[in-house]
Amino acid sequence: MILSALLTSVGINLGLCFLFFTLYSVLRKQPGNADVYAPRLVAEGKLEPRINFNLERLLPSAGWVSSSWHPTEEELLSRAGLDGVVFMRVIIFSLKVFAFAGVVGLCALLPINFMGNQIVIDFSDFTNKSLESFSISNVNDGSKKLWVHFGAVYAFTAFVCYLLYLEYRYISLKRLAYYYSSEPKPDQFTVLVRGIPKSSAESLSANVEKFFSEYYPSLYLSHYMVYHTTKIQKLISEADKVSRRLAYLKSTQKTSQRYGRVGFLGLFRPKIDLVEYYEKKLEELEDNARTQQSLLSGKEVPAAFVSFKSRLGAAVVLHVQQGENPTEWLTERAPQPEDVYWPFFSASFISRWIGNVMVIFACVILTILFFIPVIIVQGLTNLDQLETWFPFLKGILNIAFISQVITGYLPSLILKMFLYLVPPVMIMLSSIQGYVANSQIEKSACNKMLWFTIWNIFFANVLSGSVLYRVNIFLEPKEVPNILAVAVPGQATFFVTYVVTNGWTSTASELLRLMPLVSNFVGRIFFTKADEKFELPSLPYSSEIPSILLFGLLGITYFFLSPLILPFLLVYYCLAYIIYRHQLLNVYSPKFETGGTFWPIVHNSMVFSLILMHMIAVGIFGLKKLPLASSLTIPLPIITLLFNSYCRKRFLPVFKGYPAECMIKKDRSNESMSDFHERLATAYQDPALKPIHFSRRTDSHNAPLLASET
Amino acid sequence: MILSALLTSVGINLGLCFLFFTLYSVLRKQPGNADVYAPRLVAEGKLEPRINFNLERLLPSAGWVSSSWHPTEEELLSRAGLDGVVFMRVIIFSLKVFAFAGVVGLCALLPINFMGNQIVIDFSDFTNKSLESFSISNVNDGSKKLWVHFGAVYAFTAFVCYLLYLEYRYISLKRLAYYYSSEPKPDQFTVLVRGIPKSSAESLSANVEKFFSEYYPSLYLSHYMVYHTTKIQKLISEADKVSRRLAYLKSTQKTSQRYGRVGFLGLFRPKIDLVEYYEKKLEELEDNARTQQSLLSGKEVPAAFVSFKSRLGAAVVLHVQQGENPTEWLTERAPQPEDVYWPFFSASFISRWIGNVMVIFACVILTILFFIPVIIVQGLTNLDQLETWFPFLKGILNIAFISQVITGYLPSLILKMFLYLVPPVMIMLSSIQGYVANSQIEKSACNKMLWFTIWNIFFANVLSGSVLYRVNIFLEPKEVPNILAVAVPGQATFFVTYVVTNGWTSTASELLRLMPLVSNFVGRIFFTKADEKFELPSLPYSSEIPSILLFGLLGITYFFLSPLILPFLLVYYCLAYIIYRHQLLNVYSPKFETGGTFWPIVHNSMVFSLILMHMIAVGIFGLKKLPLASSLTIPLPIITLLFNSYCRKRFLPVFKGYPAECMIKKDRSNESMSDFHERLATAYQDPALKPIHFSRRTDSHNAPLLASET
Repeated sequence: MILSALLTSVGINLGLCFLFFTLYSVLRKQPGNADVYAPRLVAEGKLEPRINFNLERLLPSAGWVSSSWHPTEEELLSRAGLDGVVFMRVIIFSLKVFAFAGVVGLCALLPINFMGNQIVIDFSDFTNKSLESFSISNVNDGSKKLWVHFGAVYAFTAFVCYLLYLEYRYISLKRLAYYYSSEPKPDQFTVLVRGIPKSSAESLSANVEKFFSEYYPSLYLSHYMVYHTTKIQKLISEADKVSRRLAYLKSTQKTSQRYGRVGFLGLFRPKIDLVEYYEKKLEELEDNARTQQSLLSGKEVPAAFVSFKSRLGAAVVLHVQQGENPTEWLTERAPQPEDVYWPFFSASFISRWIGNVMVIFACVILTILFFIPVIIVQGLTNLDQLETWFPFLKGILNIAFISQVITGYLPSLILKMFLYLVPPVMIMLSSIQGYVANSQIEKSACNKMLWFTIWNIFFANVLSGSVLYRVNIFLEPKEVPNILAVAVPGQATFFVTYVVTNGWTSTASELLRLMPLVSNFVGRIFFTKADEKFELPSLPYSSEIPSILLFGLLGITYFFLSPLILPFLLVYYCLAYIIYRHQLLNVYSPKFETGGTFWPIVHNSMVFSLILMHMIAVGIFGLKKLPLASSLTIPLPIITLLFNSYCRKRFLPVFKGYPAECMIKKDRSNESMSDFHERLATAYQDPALKPIHFSRRTDSHNAPLLASET
Repeated sequence: MILSALLTSVGINLGLCFLFFTLYSVLRKQPGNADVYAPRLVAEGKLEPRINFNLERLLPSAGWVSSSWHPTEEELLSRAGLDGVVFMRVIIFSLKVFAFAGVVGLCALLPINFMGNQIVIDFSDFTNKSLESFSISNVNDGSKKLWVHFGAVYAFTAFVCYLLYLEYRYISLKRLAYYYSSEPKPDQFTVLVRGIPKSSAESLSANVEKFFSEYYPSLYLSHYMVYHTTKIQKLISEADKVSRRLAYLKSTQKTSQRYGRVGFLGLFRPKIDLVEYYEKKLEELEDNARTQQSLLSGKEVPAAFVSFKSRLGAAVVLHVQQGENPTEWLTERAPQPEDVYWPFFSASFISRWIGNVMVIFACVILTILFFIPVIIVQGLTNLDQLETWFPFLKGILNIAFISQVITGYLPSLILKMFLYLVPPVMIMLSSIQGYVANSQIEKSACNKMLWFTIWNIFFANVLSGSVLYRVNIFLEPKEVPNILAVAVPGQATFFVTYVVTNGWTSTASELLRLMPLVSNFVGRIFFTKADEKFELPSLPYSSEIPSILLFGLLGITYFFLSPLILPFLLVYYCLAYIIYRHQLLNVYSPKFETGGTFWPIVHNSMVFSLILMHMIAVGIFGLKKLPLASSLTIPLPIITLLFNSYCRKRFLPVFKGYPAECMIKKDRSNESMSDFHERLATAYQDPALKPIHFSRRTDSHNAPLLASET
């Protein structure tokens, strides 16, 4: 690709970014959009109503930037939880890494690359100059200047490892500090017990009671049995729908809507009073659900939330094998009550097992199917091929601007569109895998998404562009560095446009929240508010973290190959810093708190990126006829892996649980526990088993929610 | 190989066995050999002195067989510990497996093999008939009779898995029962704590005291700090030698020995009174060691044995991460006091790390070096090649008997000689790897030895005999079944002779205890008793279990290929049953008790053997042009692996620790704990730090042992 195509792409995306910023700064001031741009403030009742119309409302402004810049990390912690802080630390970490890389890359490596003359180019026209001349490919074979690249690889690895260590330590300390400062929480005192053995004489619930009060008389507090509630869940969701419909009907003034035909063959039935009909139906459903609730005793799932009087007590039961038969009385960490994924418990063991197998297959199929858009994208970057396939396009493609748009902008756009579809699929896949908590599903989906992205965006593009898409190259470990060294530098320019399109514009559109904006607009015009549930959005970690990490991977691998990517990345991270901070403070509300356990995923991904860079370096120095540098690079991945194994020992255990020291200190701190113990006994409850009462009012905003006070 | 060579080998070994049995039954009656053949009874003082000479002493008898047959498993448990029982269960398990295999193999498979005519042979001379005609190679290609083999593979796998399940359950129940019935033991209440953090103000010992009495005030009992004692150990072992020498000098009557020259240049020094000299030297060494003992405070190792008041207390500390920094306050299961491998603690972290790396290299080098004897052995089985290499041997080799001895007996004998050298090397390697207990070293050496044996005896012989010794075939997983199917049946006869030589004769020589017998004999004639330490021998699990398991592997893989091996194996297991039982009751005394944790190694090895058999079956059915049977065998290894993973979940956790249920029940049983707690406080003590006092008497058998009563 030539420089002008890159500039076209940068131009388009810069324009889009400014458009989005301007639109946002105007739209956010419209009171109707408060639900979209400040749902947290709305929910917290902090937003002052601004009904008076004035000119200011129509002028773009940048006040939101400073308002999201100012809050300290403590404020962020209190508003977005530790997960939000960790998310921001990922961006800050990347900024630090690429600031260093940028200085080294632009001041030392770029001039050396540019001064080489391996690639013969036409110097007369600068804008048509191939971007290749800025990459390591342009350095002469066997040149002594490559030792600068070699030094840069070592220095960069040392710097990244140092930062990784500091960051891991910082976050693990934050995690402990967060634990120390937290209020007593039900999940700290509770253990999820599975595999409760059946006895003919007693119910499972009595069995749990007996076991724990016999063996832990001084520690055991209470337990909450889990039941099969699929039926009740269905009845309640149906009743919920009917109650919404009813509320809508009552709120409308037109009598024409109050009367209608119902049922499958409604056309042949007489018209009836719909309000009366739905009220009757709602009552029936409620009665039905209540009857089901009272018939639960035989539907026990062999799982229970068992609560203990102290944190250490729960930890003891969690860590020591309980029953003589290791397949019974299995214990695992209880999630927070609001984080429990209840449908999981109703699924049978077999359905979960089949689900697991299916998920593996689905991931494989998804990866294969995703190769189709990748081929299309790579076809677009090679225009000549496109012309031979579709000769009628020749005329259009010869227009300079259009061909630049097609090679520079379109490929990344298409890839981005397809990538939008993947995260919901991954979450769905993770949810049928048998996790007991939403946070676990999110984390598992994050991992899946990360490897999917790295494989399908990085490797698929790299390998399809030069060599064929061959999985089997990874079966010949010796060849991998050489193949990567040939393939990776060739895709540098594609990834620069990818950063611009997917990094800049996606982040800017994250600010604009286009989808919620449109659905809110449509909702306001065509439906009444009551017909829709108002739910606070939460940051979709499983799609955002992998995309940030992919940019990290691109930056790390291309740092010494083609430093031109670094300024674009830095701009991306600056944008991301300010925009995600703003969204975390104003838009997203944390649905769960994992205590920063997303960080180990980030750490692993960074170490993987470093080792990938080392492998490419080994290959590149070999290709460039500097075998000594190539062999001297080999210790680097080994040192990095040793560093990683040290970090795993030093920090990872803290992310898997809390040390006894903390738990005992926390248990001894003066807290009024009696109140809390009372609340603890009722903290875990299947939403399907809460008292059923659907409001029939029409005036409230939150009308159709379950009323749990009754 | 032809039948007559096999018969020669069987004949030689049968003769040897009978010779050994006869010798044993005579020698055991000689009072001078009591230390060799009944050291346990001697140590326990149960052996009646039999000084009167009578003719019966010179006649062979078989009374020992019935006396070792009669005791029940409970008696065996009380005398040999659970490890001894598990060891016997391995043999019983193998007997059951190969009794079933023998019935199926000899009644169904052998006739089918023999009736085939794939291999053209001369029927006129039965003794010269190739043994190949009894193997699956003789069945005609594509014959429907191969479905019998197919069915046998399925039935055998099902039978073995069923037995494995029963046995795993039996032993895990035994283990729990053993725990329930055991006296309170120090290791149940103690945890080894490592990584004790240094503080400038206090010693490590004070640090331990503070930490555990602060966080576990109601559970903490006492602790024993570990010190660097390399110097003291050296002084004590030197003093030990001097004291032995002294005792010997005092016991001899010859005055000529009392005077002599000492030192490196002794020849030029005047003669002195040696008794006086050594007494002086011993005193010096003792004083020196005592001074060193009093100077220990600065030589603390950051490790301590911390004892708790209850078993559950120790388990809590063991399983829950203690310190905020996961590299500090590391806890691990404490070994029994007599099982602790003290030298380990004096080794620095770096020396242990280097040791670990060295062990990996040493294992690789040993494996490569061991290939030399394997090549020699395989050369001997191909006589023609030997003749071309050494033409002068032609005359000798043409004598029928000699050539039969060379092909039938010599190869296994040579292999056996080399194999004798390996177990001590493996134990030495394991001991520098950083295990804290002798039992852990033994278990690790057992694992190393097992894989070494399987690789170097089974695979090296199989692959060098037909294809070249190529490690890289395992890089093409699809080819493995075919290569094995070609190579394995060809080595059937070699392994039959291997069973006869290494199985029968080795086991019989185990009864005779040739090496201890000779050293005892030499010792009695040339040295006085006092010059030697009398140590009770213990069963060398690390060399015996792998050899039993190798025969299991041979039996399982050759069961359907060449059922002729099965009767030989059955004889071997019968011999092993009676001989090892006898040795466990009379000779070996358990040095440690692992609670049956050798069983998981046995289980894994059996599952591996089954899967190896399945792979060979897949290959063989393919070669024999029965592709349907080949494909239908593929689910078998998958089912076996699923079975294995179930067993791992169901039983393995019990072998890694004890469940809370057991510990709490045991803690509550009425035991007089105050006495035990007192003993517990002094249970762990570095032998180098015990009070030093060397006896100067000459009359006692145990004279030079450390006197710990002072």
